[in-house]
Formats: sequence, C-alpha cells, structure tokens
Amino acid sequence: MSKQKTVFVTGGTGYIGSHCIVDLLNEGYEVITIDNLTNSRSGALRRVEEITGKKVTFYQCDLLDGETVHKIFAKHKIDYVIHFAAMKAVGESMQFPLIYYKNNVIGTINLIEAMKANNVYQMVFSSSCTVYGDPEHLPITEDHPTGAVTNVYGRTKYLIEEMLKDLSRAEEKWNIIALRYFNPVGAHPSGRLGEDPTKNFTNLMPYIGQVAIGKKPNLTIFGSDYDTPDGTGVRDYIHVMDLASGHVSALTKLDQEHLKFKTYNLGTGQGVSVLQLVKAFEAVTDTKVPYELKPRREGDIVSMFANTTLAKNELGWTAKYSLENMCKSL
Amino acid sequence: MSKQKTVFVTGGTGYIGSHCIVDLLNEGYEVITIDNLTNSRSGALRRVEEITGKKVTFYQCDLLDGETVHKIFAKHKIDYVIHFAAMKAVGESMQFPLIYYKNNVIGTINLIEAMKANNVYQMVFSSSCTVYGDPEHLPITEDHPTGAVTNVYGRTKYLIEEMLKDLSRAEEKWNIIALRYFNPVGAHPSGRLGEDPTKNFTNLMPYIGQVAIGKKPNLTIFGSDYDTPDGTGVRDYIHVMDLASGHVSALTKLDQEHLKFKTYNLGTGQGVSVLQLVKAFEAVTDTKVPYELKPRREGDIVSMFANTTLAKNELGWTAKYSLENMCKSL
Repeated sequence: MSKQKTVFVTGGTGYIGSHCIVDLLNEGYEVITIDNLTNSRSGALRRVEEITGKKVTFYQCDLLDGETVHKIFAKHKIDYVIHFAAMKAVGESMQFPLIYYKNNVIGTINLIEAMKANNVYQMVFSSSCTVYGDPEHLPITEDHPTGAVTNVYGRTKYLIEEMLKDLSRAEEKWNIIALRYFNPVGAHPSGRLGEDPTKNFTNLMPYIGQVAIGKKPNLTIFGSDYDTPDGTGVRDYIHVMDLASGHVSALTKLDQEHLKFKTYNLGTGQGVSVLQLVKAFEAVTDTKVPYELKPRREGDIVSMFANTTLAKNELGWTAKYSLENMCKSL
Repeated sequence: MSKQKTVFVTGGTGYIGSHCIVDLLNEGYEVITIDNLTNSRSGALRRVEEITGKKVTFYQCDLLDGETVHKIFAKHKIDYVIHFAAMKAVGESMQFPLIYYKNNVIGTINLIEAMKANNVYQMVFSSSCTVYGDPEHLPITEDHPTGAVTNVYGRTKYLIEEMLKDLSRAEEKWNIIALRYFNPVGAHPSGRLGEDPTKNFTNLMPYIGQVAIGKKPNLTIFGSDYDTPDGTGVRDYIHVMDLASGHVSALTKLDQEHLKFKTYNLGTGQGVSVLQLVKAFEAVTDTKVPYELKPRREGDIVSMFANTTLAKNELGWTAKYSLENMCKSL
C-alpha cells in the first residue's frame, strides 16, 4: 500500500478477530481494536503482536457504551471498520434473547453512529450462514432467501444485515460488505492462537479437541439417520486463517468499488459430515475420539454448504486450507 | 372490575394512544402514560381528561432514556403495558433508517427491561399490517407469512414482533398480544381528539380532510390502473375508536388466558378503494375533494384487507364504525 491505512476492529481479542488482526498487520494495515473481554482475553493480542512483530492499539470497551466508542473514534483517523463483536452462542441466544438483541443490535447501532459522526463509511460485517435458515437449495448462493432463521443469534445477524442494507439505500456514502461465514475451525499455524472462549462452548471442532485430549469423555453426535452419505449432519468447515484472509480481500474490494451493500459467502464449498470430520481428525492426530450417536435435535439443519463462486470472482478469494490442515492446526 | 388495574401506555399523546386512553378510562382502568412529544402534543391528554372526567398521569419521557423509564416503573404499581410509542412515517423511515431502528427497536428493548425489573409481563404491542408485505392471499389471516416487508417502518415492527416472540419462548411469564392494525382513520365522536401530528403527515384520510377544507389544493392518487374495481388501491380503513376498543378487549384476554405471544388483525375486513373513500367522504360531508390521478408508485401495495375472524372469535371484538361514520368523524 502506498499509505498505511487504519482498520478499526471490534471484537479483536476473539477467535476470528484475533486471527484476522494477524493478517491485517502482516498486510501492513494499522489496527485499532476494542473488545469488552466478556468471552475472550486480551492475552490474544499479546500473542498477535509476538507472531507479527507489530503493535496493536487496544481499548477495553463495550459497544453498548456508545460514548466511549465515540471518543475512541474521535482520537484516531480510521479508514475501515471490521465488525466482529457479537454474542454468538446459539443455545444461549434462545435462553437469553433480550441480551442477544441488546448486545448485537444496539451495539451495531452505536458503532454506526460513531462511524457517521467521524465520516467513516467503509465496513466489513461478520454475518453468518445461519441467516439462510433451512436451505432450499445446495450449495447455497448469496441470493438464497434469508430471514427464516431458526435461532435468535442468527436472527440478530439477519436483522443487522437488513439494517445495513436499509442504511446503504438511504445514504449514498456507505460501502459495506457482509461476509457470511460457514463453520469456522482451526487455528493459527504457530499454535499460539486459537479458540479459547472463557465461557462454555458448544462448537463441534473445539469439542472434538477436548475429547481427544481426554478433557471430555466422549463426543455426542445428534442425528445419524439423516439423508446424507453417512447419516450425520453435513457442514462447510472453513479454516479461521482462510476467513481472516477473506476480510483482507474484502477491504481491498471496498477500495476498488462502491458496492453500497453486498454479501459474500466464506466457505470452502465442500460439505463434510460430522463423522468424516471425526475420522479425519483421528487420522491426522493419531488419537481416538470416542463418540455416541443420539437422536436428531429439533431445529438442527441437515446439510449446509456454500457456493463460493461470488467470493472467488469478485473478491479473488478462495479457501486454501484442507480438512487435514484444519484438524492439524486444532 | 373488582379492583382498579393500572395500564402503562407509551405514546399516549399520539393519535391512537390518546383515543385508546379514553376507552381505558371509561372502562375503569387507571392510566399512566409517557410520550416524548416529538410528534404530538400533551394537550391531547387535557382533552382526554375533559371527555372522560378522569385524570391521567403523564410524564414527558423518551423510551431511549431507559433510566427515567425505570424510575417511572418503580414509582407505580403497573399491571399491563400498551406500547404505542414509535416513529411511523413510511417515507421518512426510508430516508432515515437508523433513526427508526434506534427509536423503535432500542425504545422497545428499554421498555422490556423496565418491565422485567418490575415484574410486569403483560403487554399489548402496536404492530401493523405492513409486516405482511405484499399479500399472498386476501383477506389476510394472521398466519400469512411476515418479514418480506417493503419499508423500514414495517421492518422495525416485524423485528419487534420477532423479538417479543423469542422473549416469550425463553421466559414463561410473558403474556403478549401484538395487534396488527390495518389503516386507522377517523376521530373521537366528540370532535375534540383527532390526528394532529406536529410533523408533516402523508396518511390518506387526514390529507382528504385538508383538501376538503381548502388547506391543500388537491389530492394526488398514485395508481389508477390496478386490478381493482375502480383501478385505485384498496385498503382496510378502520376507525380509531374501534382500534381503541380492540386494546381493551386485548387486556381482558390477557387476564383470561396465558397466550405467551399471539397476534390479531384489527381491521374491518372490508376492502375500500381510494376513490370509494373520496366519494364516501364527499357524500357525507357534502364537500368536493378535487383529485389528480398519477402513475403507480414503486413499492405500493395494490390491495390489502384483513380477515378478522380470529379477533372476533378470541377477543370477542369486531369493528363497529362504518365508512360513513369514519368520514363524518373526520
């Protein structure tokens, strides 16, 4: 880059945020990040700095504290925002919907206000394949209907997408990319970053890791009689370093074109079943992952994987990590 | 009622709020109301008190000021909430989406938090037929799909419905009725209350009134070649006093049954075209309403009227005012 540009990252100490900051620093961006540290630790940024040999400016700040967000914006010259910060546990979101609506939606409104007040209109937003609900066709393209979401977490993502779309229709200056992540897994090759939530987690991949090292007795697989090759649910697992590079590609795209509001899938395009994942993990790590088959859970989606043509054609981005890489890096 | 119950009304100085308070007072409820007075005047409540001979407790308060809302809740023993307060101009909502999301959604979140903190779980929410989007069938039943909304105002109503539904799924105590209004018109028979917005208004019925008394030169009708009896758009106009009584019926229902979350249409069930409305108005008032036919506007819905069976069967409510009454009372 001719001149160093500054990215404001929300949720920068989290799993995807911290991996993305590594990539941003390596690409020569300056990074300012905030996090409320409710589900991650600031130590992640120390490791980011060690891996990259570069500095990150960090503020412990909650997006619900609009006043502080405004102050931080006013203090820096910001070119882009990447908005990761959100509560993201599906089960928890069903139990505590108000907390999810409040954090995710009000947090984003506060962020947008701070951006407007400081003339920052370029944004990459962390969306999710959950906005598609139960797929009507596979692989899922970006024009698949959204909104029939099966959980509150996904509903907040859908709702924020709609709000950003409305905003970009009303105000010409906005240039926003929403990246719809499929199932993020894996960790930085250095082994020094990873998914290290401070709360209980229920995502499959870290759970497999815990079972493999004996921290959990066995893996429970819900549903083994689905209409899939081996009967278990199929997902599109994408390595977190691939996700990270997708954000760098998105920033470049925002520089090249005024999109107003556009969504891109970030996935590998490959559907992998739970059992395939377990077996790949066992093969790569030479450990055994005991598992138990249980009945289907209500609301679980059978099969979900991305059509990634749009991201390839328009962002010049594709996932590079294989299933084996993912298992190794975990 | 054996014991006087207290209703907390948000947006009580507005068009529908003030008419509803008349009914609530007449039915023996005690009323506490808040309004930010940005699009209505507190004088409406003085007239409510004169009409009913009863007192209303009023606070000028914005729902975005959560702290003050909490204080007001803590000061009173509240049995039910009727939540009218919202920004409601469709055109304006497309121009200023963020303001609409902020006011309508955050305002409701603050209200819900104050309710929870004070153990109030019974609520009637002002929703709108706009949540149905472009109708797939007519008349519209409550199970018609929602979410494909054509404007930001309606999107905030849809979104709040979803949030309230999620809330009632997660927390057993909630008992919420969302009333989906069709097109409110008319005024209190005393002639002392009415639609008196302080900002520019674009609703059809008050506009016709302004044209009739010469305050506006003529009425513009957008679209006269629709597939309707006379080519103009068809709506379900419901008298505001009928809407008001629908809320009283809803409160009674909340006492009788734990619904968790349920929606009811409030309409007459009759589709009336714009030209039919103009002609009825001219006949009743013996005035002339000059009008001009213009091309269709993008996004306008052709025809929209309610199936009102559910409200009739479950709330024991039907609209009583005829089209002539509506025109007279305007």
